[in-house]
Amino acid sequence: MSHPTLLQNLRTLFNPKTVAVIGASEKPDKLGFHVMKSLTSGGFKGILVPVNPAARSVMALPAFSSLEDFPGAIDLAIVVLPAKLVPGVFQECSRKGVKGIVLISAGFREIDDSEGALLQKTLADLANEAEIPVIGPNTFGMVNLHIGLNASFTPEFSLLSKGGIALVSQSGGISHLMGFMAIRQNAGVSKIVGLGNRLNVDFPEMVPYLMQDPDTRVLALYLEGLDDPRRLMSVVKQTRFVKPVVAYKTGSSRTGNQASLSHTGSLAGRQEIYEGALKQSGVLYVDGAETLLDAARALSLCPAPQGKSVAILSGQAGPAMAASDVCEAEGMEIAGFHPETQRTINSLLPPLAMRTNPVDMGPAWYNTSAIEGIIAAVMEDPHVDAILLLMMFASANRTAVTGFSELLLKWKQRKPVVACLIAPPGIWDQEVARLEAGGALINVPTPERAAKSLALLWEYEKMKQGRME
Amino acid sequence: MSHPTLLQNLRTLFNPKTVAVIGASEKPDKLGFHVMKSLTSGGFKGILVPVNPAARSVMALPAFSSLEDFPGAIDLAIVVLPAKLVPGVFQECSRKGVKGIVLISAGFREIDDSEGALLQKTLADLANEAEIPVIGPNTFGMVNLHIGLNASFTPEFSLLSKGGIALVSQSGGISHLMGFMAIRQNAGVSKIVGLGNRLNVDFPEMVPYLMQDPDTRVLALYLEGLDDPRRLMSVVKQTRFVKPVVAYKTGSSRTGNQASLSHTGSLAGRQEIYEGALKQSGVLYVDGAETLLDAARALSLCPAPQGKSVAILSGQAGPAMAASDVCEAEGMEIAGFHPETQRTINSLLPPLAMRTNPVDMGPAWYNTSAIEGIIAAVMEDPHVDAILLLMMFASANRTAVTGFSELLLKWKQRKPVVACLIAPPGIWDQEVARLEAGGALINVPTPERAAKSLALLWEYEKMKQGRME
Repeated sequence: MSHPTLLQNLRTLFNPKTVAVIGASEKPDKLGFHVMKSLTSGGFKGILVPVNPAARSVMALPAFSSLEDFPGAIDLAIVVLPAKLVPGVFQECSRKGVKGIVLISAGFREIDDSEGALLQKTLADLANEAEIPVIGPNTFGMVNLHIGLNASFTPEFSLLSKGGIALVSQSGGISHLMGFMAIRQNAGVSKIVGLGNRLNVDFPEMVPYLMQDPDTRVLALYLEGLDDPRRLMSVVKQTRFVKPVVAYKTGSSRTGNQASLSHTGSLAGRQEIYEGALKQSGVLYVDGAETLLDAARALSLCPAPQGKSVAILSGQAGPAMAASDVCEAEGMEIAGFHPETQRTINSLLPPLAMRTNPVDMGPAWYNTSAIEGIIAAVMEDPHVDAILLLMMFASANRTAVTGFSELLLKWKQRKPVVACLIAPPGIWDQEVARLEAGGALINVPTPERAAKSLALLWEYEKMKQGRME
Repeated sequence: MSHPTLLQNLRTLFNPKTVAVIGASEKPDKLGFHVMKSLTSGGFKGILVPVNPAARSVMALPAFSSLEDFPGAIDLAIVVLPAKLVPGVFQECSRKGVKGIVLISAGFREIDDSEGALLQKTLADLANEAEIPVIGPNTFGMVNLHIGLNASFTPEFSLLSKGGIALVSQSGGISHLMGFMAIRQNAGVSKIVGLGNRLNVDFPEMVPYLMQDPDTRVLALYLEGLDDPRRLMSVVKQTRFVKPVVAYKTGSSRTGNQASLSHTGSLAGRQEIYEGALKQSGVLYVDGAETLLDAARALSLCPAPQGKSVAILSGQAGPAMAASDVCEAEGMEIAGFHPETQRTINSLLPPLAMRTNPVDMGPAWYNTSAIEGIIAAVMEDPHVDAILLLMMFASANRTAVTGFSELLLKWKQRKPVVACLIAPPGIWDQEVARLEAGGALINVPTPERAAKSLALLWEYEKMKQGRME
C-alpha cells in the first residue's frame, strides 16, 4: 500500500472510534476473554463490538455473529481465532472497510512446516490488497495509553502511566517485562506494540508513524532479527534526530540466534553489524532491557546536556563515588566548579565535608536551606552541563527532598537533572512522583544507573551534534 | 588486642544483652533520637540504657546521667556525642568494662586538619588498651537482624528480612541503598555494618568474625580505599572458600579516588590492583551495587552449579534470548538436552514452539501439568547443571507459577534454580516469596540479571574448584 495510506490507516488503527473483537469470549481459558477484559477495563471511550456467533452478549456488551451484522463502521478489528479461520476473517474485514487489524492468533510463519508460511503469505496478500495494516500475527497486541486503549491480552497494561515512550518490540515477553518495570518505576508510556511475526507492519512501518505521533517523544525498539535490516536503517536515517530512537537487540549468542529463527521467523544475524548500522543511523544502542527503559525515560523527560561536565550533588559520599566512576568510564567529566560556585558551597558546608565536585551534602542534612543553596549555585554554574542529584534516605534526612522540591520545580531542568532519591517503599514516592510530573528531574533506581542514563543522554546528543557539524 | 579477645568481643558487640546509648535524645534533630527509635522499634529483646545527663527518661525508658550510674553490666555502647567529648566517654566505657562500641559521631580522621587525626589516634589507643572493638567513627551504625538489633540511626533498616547476607561497607550511603534494595527484593540479611573511619575494626577484623558467625552465609563487601590492602588480602586468603566473599569497589575514576581520601581518609588506589588481588584471594569481584546484591543473594540461597550447562525454561521467547546472550557472554553454556528429556519436551509442546534449549513454554500456558512435566524432565537431566526459569506474567498465565510450585519446593534446588518471575505489584509476590522461603529458587528482577547471577555462581565455583585441583 502507498506510504500516505499506510500512515493514515496506522493512525486510525492506534486511535480507533470503534473496535471489534473477533473471537470475543467469556471463558477465562480463551485469549478472547482476556482481550475483552483489557478493552473494558482500560478506560477506552469508543465503541466495543464483541463478535462471536455463539454468544448473545460478552461482558454485558451485545455480541454480533459477524462483523457484517454490526450496523456501523469498524476502525480496528482484533482477531483471536485459530489460524485456519483467519483468511476468512480478513476477507470480511476487507468487505467491511476495516482500517486496521491486530492479529493475536499464532500458527503462521513461526511454525516448522511450510503451511504456516503459506498461510501468512495469503494473509499478507489479502491485507495489502485491502490496504489494511496488521499488527501481528502471534502478538499480545498493543496499547495506546493516551486514549486508554488496551488492545492486548494483558489487562494489567492499563496500570501504566501515560507518557512519551513508545516501545516497539519483537517479543511479547520483553514487552511485558518492560511494561511491568515501567509500572514500578512510574515511567510514562505512549504505546507498547508487539510486532509478532510482522505480516505487513514491521519496524520500518512503525518508525515513520511514531515520528509523526504527537504523543510519542522517544522510540524504544527491542529487536531480535530482521528480514531486511537495510530497510530499517534507511527508514531510520530519513527521520533521524526528529525524535530519539533507542534500541536493544538480542540474539548475539549462538543459541539466541537459532532461537530467533523459530521465534520470529528471522535469523538474528551478526550482532556487531546491527550495532554498527543502527549507530550509523543515529540510533542509541543499549545492551539490556533495564538500560533500554532508563535511556528512553531520560530521553523523554530530560533536555539534552550541552556538554559533558557533570555536577554530582550527593547526600552521601559512597553513591557519589559510584556515580563518578560510571561518569568517567562512560565519557562524561566531573565538572570543575566556577570559583563563585565553590565559594558558595564552602560557605554552606563545614570543612570536614567533600566540598569540591562531587559534593557530599551529608553535613547539611538538617539544614535544608544549605542544600537548596548548593543546588541553586550549581544550577547557575556555567561550567556545569548536567546535574546528578543523589540522596539515600536516612531517618535524619527525611525532609531533605521536600526542602529542594520547589527550587527544582521552578527551574524545570534548564539543564538535565538525573536523580537517585531512594527510600524504603512509601516514604519519598509521592514527592518524587510530584517532582517527575513537574519536570523537575527523573529518578533512577541506583547511582550507577543514574550516571549511565546521563551518559546515554550525552552520547545521543553527541551523535546529533556530529550530524549537524 | 589479641585475635581471640577481638573475636570474642566482636561476638558480644553484635549480640549484646545490654545496650547503652550515650547521647540518647527525644529531639528529632539529634541523631541520638533516631538511634533510640531504631533500637526501640527493631524488636530487640535485651535491655536498653539511654544515657543523657539532662533527661530523666528517653522514649519512656529511664535515662542515666552516666554509664557508671547504671547498676548492671553494659555489653555495647552506642556513642552519638560531639567528637571532643568522645575520649572521656571511651575512658568511661573502659572503666565500665564495655565489650564493644558503635561510634556514630563524625569529626575525626576525615576532617581536613590534623586535629581530627590526632583525636582518632587518641581514641584508638584508648580502645586498643581496653580491648574494645569500635565500629566507626563516622558511621550510621550496624544492624544484626537475627536478634532484632538495629544499632543505627535509620529505624527503617528494621524492615529488612533476616537471612544469610552480611554487608560490610565503607559507605553509609551504599549501605542504605543496598538495604532498601534488599527490602524491595526481599533479600535476607544477617548484618549490615558501616565501617566508617575504622578506628580498630576494619575489613580484616570483620572478615574472620563473619566467617565464624553462624547467621552469615555470604560476605558482601563494599570498598573504597584501604590503608593496608595486603592485610585484607592475607586475612581473606586464610579463610577463603569457608564462605563466599563478594566485593564491589569504587574509586576507579580520578575524582572518585580523590573523593575517597576526604571521605574515609584513605586513597582508593589503583582499581586493577585491587581487582587482581581480591580475585587471587578467592573473592568474587563485581562492578555495581545491584550486582553485589544479586551475587550475594544467589550465593546465599543457591547450591553451587557442578558445571556450566544451563537449561533456560521460559514462558516467552524474548526473555529466553536475552538470558541466552548473557549466559554465553559470561562463560556459561546452553545445555544440549539428554535425548530422553528432549522426547518428553517434544511430547508436551506443539511443534510450533521452541522445544530445544532454550525452551519456550508459551504454548503450554494453560496446561500447568505440561509445564510441570518439562521442568521435571530438565531437573533430572544429567546434561543440565543449573536452571533459569523465566516467566513474564500475562493475564492468561496467571496460574502458571502456582502450577509448578510444589514440584520446585519438593526438589529444593538440587541444582540451582535462578528465576525471573515478573508480574505487576501484588500478583505473584506472595507465591514467589513462598518459593524463595522454601528454598525452591531465587527470583531476580530481569532475565539478564538472572543469567548474570547464575554466571557469577559458576565463576565462584570455578575459583573454588581451581583451588582444590
